[in-house]
Amino acid sequence: MKTIDVEKLNSVVSNFIEERDWDQFHSIKNLSMALSVETSELVEIFQWLKEEDSNNVKNDPKLKAKVEEEISDIFIYLMRIAIKSGVDIESSVLSKIEKNSEKYPVEKARGNARKYTDL
Amino acid sequence: MKTIDVEKLNSVVSNFIEERDWDQFHSIKNLSMALSVETSELVEIFQWLKEEDSNNVKNDPKLKAKVEEEISDIFIYLMRIAIKSGVDIESSVLSKIEKNSEKYPVEKARGNARKYTDL
Amino acid sequence: MKTIDVEKLNSVVSNFIEERDWDQFHSIKNLSMALSVETSELVEIFQWLKEEDSNNVKNDPKLKAKVEEEISDIFIYLMRIAIKSGVDIESSVLSKIEKNSEKYPVEKARGNARKYTDL
Amino acid sequence: MKTIDVEKLNSVVSNFIEERDWDQFHSIKNLSMALSVETSELVEIFQWLKEEDSNNVKNDPKLKAKVEEEISDIFIYLMRIAIKSGVDIESSVLSKIEKNSEKYPVEKARGNARKYTDL
Repeated sequence: MKTIDVEKLNSVVSNFIEERDWDQFHSIKNLSMALSVETSELVEIFQWLKEEDSNNVKNDPKLKAKVEEEISDIFIYLMRIAIKSGVDIESSVLSKIEKNSEKYPVEKARGNARKYTDL
Repeated sequence: MKTIDVEKLNSVVSNFIEERDWDQFHSIKNLSMALSVETSELVEIFQWLKEEDSNNVKNDPKLKAKVEEEISDIFIYLMRIAIKSGVDIESSVLSKIEKNSEKYPVEKARGNARKYTDL
Repeated sequence: MKTIDVEKLNSVVSNFIEERDWDQFHSIKNLSMALSVETSELVEIFQWLKEEDSNNVKNDPKLKAKVEEEISDIFIYLMRIAIKSGVDIESSVLSKIEKNSEKYPVEKARGNARKYTDL
Repeated sequence: MKTIDVEKLNSVVSNFIEERDWDQFHSIKNLSMALSVETSELVEIFQWLKEEDSNNVKNDPKLKAKVEEEISDIFIYLMRIAIKSGVDIESSVLSKIEKNSEKYPVEKARGNARKYTDL
């Protein structure tokens, strides 16, 4: 996976929604709820699995197909929220990682999963 | 936002994680939990807002900055789960929309937000 | 609803789980995931509804039946986490409300849904 | 924990909300969002912990105090949604367990965490 062609995906998704006249339901508030519901469907896949078994998605075609569907749903809603909010995902991620580099200095954070407020 | 350069973002994020030796915590199971936590931080922004006010993110710099941060965190975990699962986001979204087009036929779904099991 | 007989519910639930030998899956970590999945099933009911329509659950038997099921699932997991964690819900809620009364002083919080960090 | 005195807790919580004039924000839709946000704060505590460490809450006072706060917040919103929806938690849980006993027959479900649709 080298890039995601957001322009193409957004055009396909927007067309799907327009045909069904569903944009009337898509306030950003409602989209954030839908995003969290889809995310939980991903969590549901892993809730009773051991950590090591969760790492096996790649080699388990049935499990992978489920994960693929949920990742797609999550990305669709995330893209839609980003576009409606005027947010550019690529540049936002780059700034966020810069911020996080300051919040979690290597020497304090190394090998340590505590929240920055606890560091 | 035309494309997302996943290869670049993944390299920046992987480097950030490696420097901190955090990959030991990043089973797909744990990443799905972290994704849901970040999604809820987006939901939290909108929980007491009216739908129409949620649609104003674009024009409210303070609100937009918060949304930008949460979208970034969500995308980072989503990308990481996708890569560890061997999932290509762009092609998965395209297949998902095709599937959804069958599950939600235009004539039944038009203007109607009910779940396909209720259609 | 005056009280909840936790002792009785826990005995019924524990018996259900023991018969199926499911406690092996119920680490507190996994139970927290299951709790969040069930909560999202409640959110799903309301994601496309207007706020005023969500307030109509009481008078809509079909909607109420769905809400009832999700509330039950949420309570079951919450109770199980509390018991495994040695937490007494009633006394914890009372201390939490006391804390919140300090975090959100009436004069600052009145009619204002902002987070205490923003007050 | 033998019982939860919902009548007492509801009176304390309602009073807290009334003093702050916050009921205007508490549509059932919004309360379901708030409930999911609080649930994620519980998930956050466990996201990087090993399953066996998550089972140690009882013996770790600092961890237990955090869990206690999140359980309280979750219960407060759950109780509020139940009361606004006319749902009696105790009797709903009892019916749900009866339903689940049919959905998950002991002989098929024993030692098996698959969803009933997969049994």
